[in-house]
Amino acid sequence: MAAEQTAAGTSAADKQAGPLSGITVVDLSRILAGPYCTLMMAELGARVIKVETPGTGDDARHYGPFVNGKSAYFQSVNRGKQSIALNLKDDGDRATFEKLLAKADVIVENFRPGTMEKLGYGWEDLHPKYPKLIYASASGFGHSGPEMKRPAYDMVVQGMGGIMSITGHEGSPPTRIGTSIGDIGAGLFTAIGVMSALFGRAMTGEARKVDIGMFDCQVALLENAAMRYFVTGKAPGPLGARHPSITPFQAFNTQDGYIIIAAGNDGLFHKMADALGKPEWKTDDRYTTNDLRATHVTELEAEVEAVLKTQPTAHWMTVMDAAGVPAGPINDIGQAVEYPQTAARNMVVTVDDPVTGPMKVVGNPIKISGFPDPTTRLPAPNLDQDRDAILREIEQ
Amino acid sequence: MAAEQTAAGTSAADKQAGPLSGITVVDLSRILAGPYCTLMMAELGARVIKVETPGTGDDARHYGPFVNGKSAYFQSVNRGKQSIALNLKDDGDRATFEKLLAKADVIVENFRPGTMEKLGYGWEDLHPKYPKLIYASASGFGHSGPEMKRPAYDMVVQGMGGIMSITGHEGSPPTRIGTSIGDIGAGLFTAIGVMSALFGRAMTGEARKVDIGMFDCQVALLENAAMRYFVTGKAPGPLGARHPSITPFQAFNTQDGYIIIAAGNDGLFHKMADALGKPEWKTDDRYTTNDLRATHVTELEAEVEAVLKTQPTAHWMTVMDAAGVPAGPINDIGQAVEYPQTAARNMVVTVDDPVTGPMKVVGNPIKISGFPDPTTRLPAPNLDQDRDAILREIEQ
Repeated sequence: MAAEQTAAGTSAADKQAGPLSGITVVDLSRILAGPYCTLMMAELGARVIKVETPGTGDDARHYGPFVNGKSAYFQSVNRGKQSIALNLKDDGDRATFEKLLAKADVIVENFRPGTMEKLGYGWEDLHPKYPKLIYASASGFGHSGPEMKRPAYDMVVQGMGGIMSITGHEGSPPTRIGTSIGDIGAGLFTAIGVMSALFGRAMTGEARKVDIGMFDCQVALLENAAMRYFVTGKAPGPLGARHPSITPFQAFNTQDGYIIIAAGNDGLFHKMADALGKPEWKTDDRYTTNDLRATHVTELEAEVEAVLKTQPTAHWMTVMDAAGVPAGPINDIGQAVEYPQTAARNMVVTVDDPVTGPMKVVGNPIKISGFPDPTTRLPAPNLDQDRDAILREIEQ
Repeated sequence: MAAEQTAAGTSAADKQAGPLSGITVVDLSRILAGPYCTLMMAELGARVIKVETPGTGDDARHYGPFVNGKSAYFQSVNRGKQSIALNLKDDGDRATFEKLLAKADVIVENFRPGTMEKLGYGWEDLHPKYPKLIYASASGFGHSGPEMKRPAYDMVVQGMGGIMSITGHEGSPPTRIGTSIGDIGAGLFTAIGVMSALFGRAMTGEARKVDIGMFDCQVALLENAAMRYFVTGKAPGPLGARHPSITPFQAFNTQDGYIIIAAGNDGLFHKMADALGKPEWKTDDRYTTNDLRATHVTELEAEVEAVLKTQPTAHWMTVMDAAGVPAGPINDIGQAVEYPQTAARNMVVTVDDPVTGPMKVVGNPIKISGFPDPTTRLPAPNLDQDRDAILREIEQ
């Protein structure tokens, strides 16, 4: 499928085509959570119009690194979008904004709760006037509850939501998830909410408000850590590089580094035992079920590493591949994006930006049959770049 | 909005209502990536029918901890779904499966590429026979490229996709993200793909294949880490508890622990400086822009901690709240799920399971106006629990 998509879509001179083609998103969001959501929508065919503060624009325009004065950070999350600068406290600009809303399907914002209401653009104001407009909000703590007005950024919800408490090594100082999972998690859940609302609107004609709290999303991502707390009443701690309930499922030392082996069931554990020349593990009373292996994880780890330390990672990758046991190296970012599979899946694409020159950005992980998966993208807009075109259009 | 939802939905005796009400998902997926996607769909109103291997069922049924013999892990991801056990190599069961497909809107699977094709149920087989059926696959490396047949579990793609290389402290051993972001990331992108395809089908009548690679999703989550590599050619390393491009945006030591302060722009930095009694930082040549602060992060960190270490975290939370600077403690899982906002947003809900008794699970972070957000959920099904009802239904 990907091959066919590539063939069909090597030129991305036009707006990307996808299941959301024809949908217009008015995007008031800044920095990351909202913009990541609307990036996904743009990748799936939607037209995204950023409405930015005159003069400064999206804060992310000022985050480094810069290439010829243009923020690469901004480029990576806003390529393929349009921009108009509007002062939502100015009457003329408000009139323009309202004409824009009348033509839009979705509005996305990530202000602190109350900001849109103060501007007269909260859901209660907009819904009666624009009954087809879906309203999506991604705020720190959502639009209800005692903490709804509390400000939040990515790291605040990473810390408060519990994920940092289970990431890292026992006794180590706090560890942030290396990527902005507080923002990106919220962006992904917002995208799911908006798309389900678009489908619902297609079925019933009714538009909805989607209310996402970044903190809620962190709780939703806790998955089995929250479950273990509910069952045991004990907060789980950090586990280094092990899975909490599946064994063996972790990074192991080899002669020259590390290998991850994920033997997620008895069959894979048997294959691993054979591949490491230790068939006796298969019938060892300590290792016959996942639960027993989890109980005896320290002994098992020592026995596995005693074997693995005799050879380098590359050797064991060949052995595990031949045995059909899921395994992998720990790649740095360069190795991950230069991995041949990354290119084969169009997961690195090129923005041909007149300011920066050609610049690489991450591609779209959602491959959908029948739509192109092009290897190029349009650049992120300069502030207010599309004003004239948008004004002409909404006056029609 | 959440309050109104609660009032409307305190009884969840019936299937959850949402924008996907009326949609039927046939779910062949196991463990986490696929089941997390279909959990989100069930939370948004879809009916999800798990089709499981007779005898053993979903591997996750055998993952601990157990409550009265039932897996809490399985419960947390499969509550509210139905189950039928079918042997897809048996002619009678295949006939049943095919009748089920004829009534379904979406099929979700997370087998290794080729498995569905061997069963005669690949996209190319199904699409001509069931032209309205959306096909979603979440596999380790997707359905194309040189590594498509490589097996993967969560930790394998966490390691290969680069996120582990930027998580942790310099010189520390490898650090797994405490939650299964390899699986959950893929589950979220699959959900976005499926919902966009449902919307697309509503517009054009055409069904699509959604092809998700867990590895691709890890690359998509790298966000500014990938961008920094593309711009500088240097793979970024782990940053402990700091943000890579925003300063100050990190965990700081206090007298009795840690506080996270996220001063994401100049205005917030000024408020923080005033709140800490250091107004001179606002005009300090080293700190006037985010870029300068990032360059001088070590000095700034030392200066901030010199102040913060004079008082406990609770004191500084009050100070930061009063100043309007985003800040937070580092909660453990218990503190996160017991936080009053968590309850106010229905982010902990109860499954009334006849086997386990009442059990808490994490709620739905996607709040949509006009639909209930109930505080209870139906239990995860026993293996093959819904066979008779489903058989009666498809014979009609």
